[in-house]
Amino acid sequence: MIIIGIDPGIAIMGIGVIKYEGNSFKPIYYNAIKTSSKTPTDQRLRIIYEELSKLLDTYKPNVIAIEELFFNNNSKTAFIVGQARGVAILSAANRNIPVYEYTPLQVKQGVVGYGRADKKQVQQMIKTLLCLKTVPKPDDVADALAVAICHGHSGNFSDLFKIK
Amino acid sequence: MIIIGIDPGIAIMGIGVIKYEGNSFKPIYYNAIKTSSKTPTDQRLRIIYEELSKLLDTYKPNVIAIEELFFNNNSKTAFIVGQARGVAILSAANRNIPVYEYTPLQVKQGVVGYGRADKKQVQQMIKTLLCLKTVPKPDDVADALAVAICHGHSGNFSDLFKIK
Repeated sequence: MIIIGIDPGIAIMGIGVIKYEGNSFKPIYYNAIKTSSKTPTDQRLRIIYEELSKLLDTYKPNVIAIEELFFNNNSKTAFIVGQARGVAILSAANRNIPVYEYTPLQVKQGVVGYGRADKKQVQQMIKTLLCLKTVPKPDDVADALAVAICHGHSGNFSDLFKIK
Repeated sequence: MIIIGIDPGIAIMGIGVIKYEGNSFKPIYYNAIKTSSKTPTDQRLRIIYEELSKLLDTYKPNVIAIEELFFNNNSKTAFIVGQARGVAILSAANRNIPVYEYTPLQVKQGVVGYGRADKKQVQQMIKTLLCLKTVPKPDDVADALAVAICHGHSGNFSDLFKIK
C-alpha cells in the first residue's frame, strides 16, 4: 500500500510518500511544497494544488493521511491553513483517493505508541522505521512521514479515521 | 464587466453573478451551492469545486469578489470555512480569474455607503440596485450579491482589494 502523508500549511506543506507492506515501511519520496508570502494567496493555493496533484499522479497512493489541526483560538491562522488544507483534500477527492485524518495526539500514539511522546521521540522513530540516516527536514516533512506511518499502523481501525 | 460574488461556506456557499456596465447592475444568476453535513468533507469540497467551476465556465466572469471573514476566536469554524474558501479561490486561480476580497465592513460601505449599515439595509439596497421583486434567499445569496456589487462600486480603488 502506498500512503501519502500530508502536514498542511500554506508556506510549507510537508509531503511524505511511503510504501507499507508486510508490517514494514519504505520511504519513497519526501519533500515540502513551499510558497512565498510575497505570492498572492490565490496563486499560492494554485501552486499547492498543482504540485500535490502531480505527486498524486506520479505515486498513485492508495490513501492520503492528513493532519487534523487544532488552533488555540488563533482563528486567523486556522482560516489560512484551512484554505491550504481544503485544496490538498480536493486534489485527493478529484482522484477518488480516500482521505484519512489524524490528530497530533493520534499521530504520536500511532508512531511511538505513546500520545505524550515529544517531537524528538517521534522524529527518531520515523528515522528508525524508515531506515533513514538523518531526520528529514524541515519538521513539516518529518510530520508528514509521521502521519503516513500512523495510518499504516492504524490497521483494522483505519475506518475510524476516515474523513467525515 | 461580469462579477461573481461569493459568500464562502461549506454547507451553503452563496453565489451571485452580476453584470456591471455604465454604473448600473444587472443580476445574471444567483443561487447557493449546498452540501449536506452527512457527506464527508472531501466530497463536499469536491462538489463545491465542481459546481463553482461549472458556473465560472458558464458565466466567464472578469473577476471574483469574495468575502474575507473574521471569526471571533472560533478557530474550528474558521478552519472549516477556510477549507471551502480555499477551494473556491482555487477554481478562480485555475482559470486565471483575478480574485478580490472584501471584509463585511467594506461590503456594507461599498453597497450602502455606510459601514455600520445593518443586514436589512444592505438587503434592501441589493433589491433596489438589481431591480429585484424580493430579497434573494437564503442570506448567503444576498451576501454574495452584496460583495459583487461592492466590487463594482470599488472602481478605481479596486486594486486595493486584490487578494494578497
